[in-house]
Amino acid sequence: MNKGALEGVTVLDMTRVLSGPYCGMILGDMGANVIKIEVPKTGDDSRAFPPFVGDESAYFMNLNRNKRGVTLNLKKNEAKQIFLEMVKKADVLIENFRPGTMEKLGLGWEALKEVNPSLIYGCISGFGHYGPYSSRAGYDIVGQAMSGVMSVTGWADGEPTRTGAPIADMSAGLSLATGILAALHYKEKTGKGQKVDIALVDSLVTMMTIISQIYLVGGRLPQRIGNRYESTAPYDSFPTKDGQNIVIGCANDKFWSILCKLMNREDLVNHPDMVTNKKRVENHAKIKPIVVEWTLQYNSKDLVQLLLDHEVPAAPIYDVAQVAADEHIAGAREMFVKANYPQAGELTITNSHFKMSETQPGFHFPSPNLGEHNLEVFGELLGYDEEKIKELAADSVI
Amino acid sequence: MNKGALEGVTVLDMTRVLSGPYCGMILGDMGANVIKIEVPKTGDDSRAFPPFVGDESAYFMNLNRNKRGVTLNLKKNEAKQIFLEMVKKADVLIENFRPGTMEKLGLGWEALKEVNPSLIYGCISGFGHYGPYSSRAGYDIVGQAMSGVMSVTGWADGEPTRTGAPIADMSAGLSLATGILAALHYKEKTGKGQKVDIALVDSLVTMMTIISQIYLVGGRLPQRIGNRYESTAPYDSFPTKDGQNIVIGCANDKFWSILCKLMNREDLVNHPDMVTNKKRVENHAKIKPIVVEWTLQYNSKDLVQLLLDHEVPAAPIYDVAQVAADEHIAGAREMFVKANYPQAGELTITNSHFKMSETQPGFHFPSPNLGEHNLEVFGELLGYDEEKIKELAADSVI
Repeated sequence: MNKGALEGVTVLDMTRVLSGPYCGMILGDMGANVIKIEVPKTGDDSRAFPPFVGDESAYFMNLNRNKRGVTLNLKKNEAKQIFLEMVKKADVLIENFRPGTMEKLGLGWEALKEVNPSLIYGCISGFGHYGPYSSRAGYDIVGQAMSGVMSVTGWADGEPTRTGAPIADMSAGLSLATGILAALHYKEKTGKGQKVDIALVDSLVTMMTIISQIYLVGGRLPQRIGNRYESTAPYDSFPTKDGQNIVIGCANDKFWSILCKLMNREDLVNHPDMVTNKKRVENHAKIKPIVVEWTLQYNSKDLVQLLLDHEVPAAPIYDVAQVAADEHIAGAREMFVKANYPQAGELTITNSHFKMSETQPGFHFPSPNLGEHNLEVFGELLGYDEEKIKELAADSVI
Repeated sequence: MNKGALEGVTVLDMTRVLSGPYCGMILGDMGANVIKIEVPKTGDDSRAFPPFVGDESAYFMNLNRNKRGVTLNLKKNEAKQIFLEMVKKADVLIENFRPGTMEKLGLGWEALKEVNPSLIYGCISGFGHYGPYSSRAGYDIVGQAMSGVMSVTGWADGEPTRTGAPIADMSAGLSLATGILAALHYKEKTGKGQKVDIALVDSLVTMMTIISQIYLVGGRLPQRIGNRYESTAPYDSFPTKDGQNIVIGCANDKFWSILCKLMNREDLVNHPDMVTNKKRVENHAKIKPIVVEWTLQYNSKDLVQLLLDHEVPAAPIYDVAQVAADEHIAGAREMFVKANYPQAGELTITNSHFKMSETQPGFHFPSPNLGEHNLEVFGELLGYDEEKIKELAADSVI
């Protein structure tokens, strides 16, 4: 059985909590040899984050699958020496400390590249490793606030709104994986490593794409417009008889013409206010009540089915329980997977969304207990034996 | 000057509109040789999408920078033969047609891998290339609705809310780039190509991560909770004297203790209802009005500065104009870049958010006119001359 596209790539994962560990998880799911380095005694903060299964954090267990765990107290000189020996043997190092933390330890990129010039050093922070705000602490909500995403999410008469999923953390983690893999390609061609510096804020600025472009080109400031869209109409949520909203995405003239037929309003297909997408966007406020009057006549499930039967893009608005029970998402696409953790028994976790025909990423082995692989990993990389490990533990080095 | 980490990688980009072109843009920004293949006469639909500069779509120009453009009418046999010759010389092909479209043309993954077994075939669709919903049209709003993200975005007394940025399209595009680069590593080791299949819905299911985990572990269904957060408190938006909300991210006990001091409420640091993060999350409704009473005494700018001066994570909620004018985001991090387009003159576009020390991605050359590089690319790859190109155009093959 294939172990994954990244078999043989060694990653030192010093990350904590969410965005960094998600990057390490992607690489581990893809078969990389990911070694999670934690502070002795306490470890990754997220070991203490809910939700729990017994005493174990499912938050931590999910994001740190496919990683072996070692401990290192990097404030001790001996630990630093061990760390530098590990860096010599690694392809990639990732961290999401506040910028400057690694430098204070004497282990910044400039120092590490002297030790291993082909090392790829990946980092995630709120604002990136240079610029006037670089030393500020960055959290997901800060990324959502300063990227402009909150300013365009929500309702015209309401407040700027945070997206319920941690999209800054997750897009930064995914971005770091992308940057690292590009750097890996370059390293294989040239032998040269490099630093890949990802900011939570930058990652969401990128996701704003065409919304920012509206302002950059024409100076019009995008607003909160509820569930409708700047580019196309009717493309929005609509109420139904049973109180469950659905979404309809009439993204072109063909869909609009079918929708009009379904609504028994073929007179609207070529109505001068609605004949083109441009006109429909301009006159969205006229169109919405017409569609709502029609959608209110149906139960949500029947309405989605009717629209899909006629090839109009439509969908129910799922809650998490519906996502987890869906025959396509949870069934065919296997987006959730049961995995065995010695700490917690069988646990359902989110599976990899990369569906790859030759090297399918996924769950290989559970998250480590704190320092679980000290002997195994330090043995493998540095030739240490049990006695040496005991000594290092006694000296609080590991 | 370094041309980028992916110099020498040839990508056939058959994608349209947003998610697929964003993937091609990432690869092109990183120096890959991206050849955009469009339908003759009309081209990518997004050439007609606002915002416009004169007659040219800034939407299209931004997402299709760093790509050379050719045309091919793949309904014609001669065009299919030309396409297959190109596939033989390519490392990567990307498309975001509705699943089945390439198969109907006789150009599906199974057919193409016969022609080039080391081809990496990347595709994005609403629901992926297998499973009961695979033939449904997928749009960003459908991904947001069916992933559960809308169900947890917005206010407790309000409707499920669409995120204002196209996060399904963009996360799928970024995910496809990641999957392709992992597959490229594998291909370089083994010579084997593969199919990388990304779904808009799956991409956002992944972004739900710890929110889904709450349900998967304990059966509690995550709700819309406005701008506060499931994991930590106070971590929310707060009103100020000038009416501009700000965000504060008190993610641990240290920040809470500083915040209490700033509020002149040191009595709260060890209050039994607030002493731990767990307690603060439970009692968020008690804490919010206390913080609000304090934040309302300050103007937003002063308040953010005060909090940052004391190392409490905080940020203004920026609109797009503020993002585009910010000294860190637009200044130091160069997240917007002026680029010259022969069609439109100087245009400000969103820059690459991958900050890489050796191979910085960015704008290299402008988006192509329709078929602009027919002679150059078909000449380079297949040895065609001007006469041959004229013939193909006369026969409506290109």
